[in-house]
Amino acid sequence: MSQSQSLFVSDEIWTMFEFLHMETVQSFLNEHKQRGSSMDHCYAKLEYMGFRFGQKLIEKFSKERERLKDELEMMKYICKEFWFNIYRKNIDNLRTNHQGVYVLTDNQFRFLRSISSTDQFTAECHPFLAIPCGVLRGALANIGVSASVSSEIVKPPQVKFTVTIDRKT
Amino acid sequence: MSQSQSLFVSDEIWTMFEFLHMETVQSFLNEHKQRGSSMDHCYAKLEYMGFRFGQKLIEKFSKERERLKDELEMMKYICKEFWFNIYRKNIDNLRTNHQGVYVLTDNQFRFLRSISSTDQFTAECHPFLAIPCGVLRGALANIGVSASVSSEIVKPPQVKFTVTIDRKT
Repeated sequence: MSQSQSLFVSDEIWTMFEFLHMETVQSFLNEHKQRGSSMDHCYAKLEYMGFRFGQKLIEKFSKERERLKDELEMMKYICKEFWFNIYRKNIDNLRTNHQGVYVLTDNQFRFLRSISSTDQFTAECHPFLAIPCGVLRGALANIGVSASVSSEIVKPPQVKFTVTIDRKT
Repeated sequence: MSQSQSLFVSDEIWTMFEFLHMETVQSFLNEHKQRGSSMDHCYAKLEYMGFRFGQKLIEKFSKERERLKDELEMMKYICKEFWFNIYRKNIDNLRTNHQGVYVLTDNQFRFLRSISSTDQFTAECHPFLAIPCGVLRGALANIGVSASVSSEIVKPPQVKFTVTIDRKT
């Protein structure tokens, strides 16, 4: 198999992954619509599924990584290696207030690439960020960082993920 | 990127796909358990999700294939190219009674590779075949073959998929 062929294969498998993600979210939305349960409930279920998925992914991906010595190093690892392993690109921008809030911006978030860059579909896109938010929270939990994660679609496909570290009081 | 690196990447993305499939099934099972709905109902939901997924996959994969002239050619295409695109291997054995029943045997079905080859977990594995059965039905529907699909775990990871073509009476 040539390099271009195997790159094509990677891309093909990623498409399957993207389709499966899309169908999973769509099935949850349909199920909750049929049962008349709230969108928040549906979002929470998907987010929790992402959480477990993120825990498994980081276990798989980070077997050979060096020990991460502090919170900022962990966030950098998530923005580079971990993000790249899933989405085949790094986070474009990481900002922090140095008080436990980190904003990760992905200018070309892969799950929203096919969405038009108008505001029209922004609300419809939101459930498609539940699993990615959960993945981020699950991955962080597995390396010892307890946090909550929210997302904001700036202008599709640009997405900001806000990670707020749980500080023990 | 070297060839071995890109093959490694393909394998990594396939693992993500496998994990997402596993989590999706598990979430559906948990949801149905909580609501007290039947396993058949849960299976049907997953199967339908697989159906839509299979329709999308065959559209993506078969853009450049030659026209398939009869049912047997279609089944051969499914067992080779289509199966390979998803599971990175072909179906090992295809049998037919020439009356619309096709039995496709995969000796190393990729979603069950990590299951022990004893009978103990066979019942627990069954929901994990709902999406693959749906994928098969959806792919066939998209190339004009209306069928029902069932599966049987012979001895994990060996699985037999039985395709029964709907004959218009």
